[in-house]
Amino acid sequence: MGEFELIERFFKRPAQQADVGVGDDCAIWSPQPGQQLALSTDMLVEGRHFLSTVNPRHLGHKALAVNLSDLAACGARPRAFLLALSLPRVDEDWLLGFSQGLLDLADAHGCELIGGDTTQGPLNIAITVMGETPHGQSILRSTAKAGDDIYVSGHLGDARLALEAFRGNLSLPQAAFDLARARMETPTPRTALGMALRGLATAMADISDGLLGDLGHILQASGVGARLDLSPMPGLMLTRQAWACPREWMLRCVLSGGDDYELVFTAPPAARAALKALALSCHTPITRIGSVIPDRSVLLVQEDGRELPNTFRSFDHFA
Amino acid sequence: MGEFELIERFFKRPAQQADVGVGDDCAIWSPQPGQQLALSTDMLVEGRHFLSTVNPRHLGHKALAVNLSDLAACGARPRAFLLALSLPRVDEDWLLGFSQGLLDLADAHGCELIGGDTTQGPLNIAITVMGETPHGQSILRSTAKAGDDIYVSGHLGDARLALEAFRGNLSLPQAAFDLARARMETPTPRTALGMALRGLATAMADISDGLLGDLGHILQASGVGARLDLSPMPGLMLTRQAWACPREWMLRCVLSGGDDYELVFTAPPAARAALKALALSCHTPITRIGSVIPDRSVLLVQEDGRELPNTFRSFDHFA
Repeated sequence: MGEFELIERFFKRPAQQADVGVGDDCAIWSPQPGQQLALSTDMLVEGRHFLSTVNPRHLGHKALAVNLSDLAACGARPRAFLLALSLPRVDEDWLLGFSQGLLDLADAHGCELIGGDTTQGPLNIAITVMGETPHGQSILRSTAKAGDDIYVSGHLGDARLALEAFRGNLSLPQAAFDLARARMETPTPRTALGMALRGLATAMADISDGLLGDLGHILQASGVGARLDLSPMPGLMLTRQAWACPREWMLRCVLSGGDDYELVFTAPPAARAALKALALSCHTPITRIGSVIPDRSVLLVQEDGRELPNTFRSFDHFA
Repeated sequence: MGEFELIERFFKRPAQQADVGVGDDCAIWSPQPGQQLALSTDMLVEGRHFLSTVNPRHLGHKALAVNLSDLAACGARPRAFLLALSLPRVDEDWLLGFSQGLLDLADAHGCELIGGDTTQGPLNIAITVMGETPHGQSILRSTAKAGDDIYVSGHLGDARLALEAFRGNLSLPQAAFDLARARMETPTPRTALGMALRGLATAMADISDGLLGDLGHILQASGVGARLDLSPMPGLMLTRQAWACPREWMLRCVLSGGDDYELVFTAPPAARAALKALALSCHTPITRIGSVIPDRSVLLVQEDGRELPNTFRSFDHFA
């Protein structure tokens, strides 16, 4: 099978919102009038972002999910994406699974595949997504204010727990491993919540490198600090429904695990009731974990009121 | 040097036309009202699209040039791009050269780097470009008409000649090698010509996989064929200014060499005078090489009027 048949067979579908979709030199696409575009690109490399044994359907899902998570972090509505794919060889079963996982998630979020590129080489997946927000309503990292509450969506730490189990660093009961692995391989982009937070959240980021690292980006860009309450942290790990994670693992995974694709955001205390209602309507739990302080430091406060030294590191590809 | 310092140091510049540039979850960018977006992504892999010994500055140039060439092929004005980069290690000299080559070409074409992603892995460069055309004025592949003339821009075949010399399949005099290598490593995207052809060209593509292959995409999408005149072909190869290329090499490189990043387009005979003027004003030579025929075949006609059998193959990454 050649390059063009591969595209035709696995990735080309009739253009929906695109004026010209897959198959010309460029995709031609018109954003809706009065909207700003939110654009993001994420590259996934075998052995670094996923294991070679991953189910290709899950990989297709995850490759788009991590990009949709960036749109959610800006409050943007997903519209379209481009896929650049480097493959060692044409494996039809793999391509079928990958494209199904990818396009199923795309359909679920109204995000159309409008163009791409395929080449031969080490397995590498680079997706660029485009979303829209009404003018001036994107939620940035730089606008958190002292006194704001700090929230996270969904669950944290499970993906890192699964990775440590894959690495042989700890052993999980099967039910806990299945839960953690699903969180690692098929993260859920928080699209609906991200959009609903427009006008309520003062700042937002998605959690890909770990809670402390990504919250750190908000704090740094906004010139503020945070006081975090550790007491709700155990409840953030979904795997705990099946297994009592040792406290040390739990804290490390929740605070600096990475690969979570949840949202961390700030909002004024006056928005608490509105946020509670909004989380219900989006079917996405949110948890208040602390507050923004004027001093540019991060305090980790334990149940007994004592401070825990912050020795957690976030993920850095070149550190 | 970590991932964020790397981005800060080599790729982050003050946002110009972007509302939010490098450094948030997404770039925020507003297309001009009434414009359609043209979008394209191209992935370059070491050993396949470039040699490991390439000057990083040339590589930065080429990685963006091949993407700008896709915009030119639709008649689009370059506006912005995103860069996803996988690197085996942080090599500051390499990054300095690469980013300079990339950003110099970006500046020359008014195309702003607004976002990206960096990760560790085998060297891989995936760029997504965005351009604009007035509504309905994009030049597609599917709209060539029988009776149209067929043109190519600039020079063809030199990049392939350089590749064959690198592979040791032929030996070139130094001056010819330098010319051919420059064409291979620093192709010139035909941005001004592409935009000027709006309303004149009936169909257009860029030549990345070889003239016959990319013209073939136009013919197939338009449901037509072509009669090509081989007599102007020798003059298309720039290297011939320094070296009398054997006819067999010349034909193979011009017709199916690949990596040219020139434009192939169709236009009605009534447009000949306008096209001549336009080529002059864009400082880009164009050459009429044949005409579109209703029959879905490609005829290669020699100087003496005899047909040459078409045994040329275009490039396919998985063929």
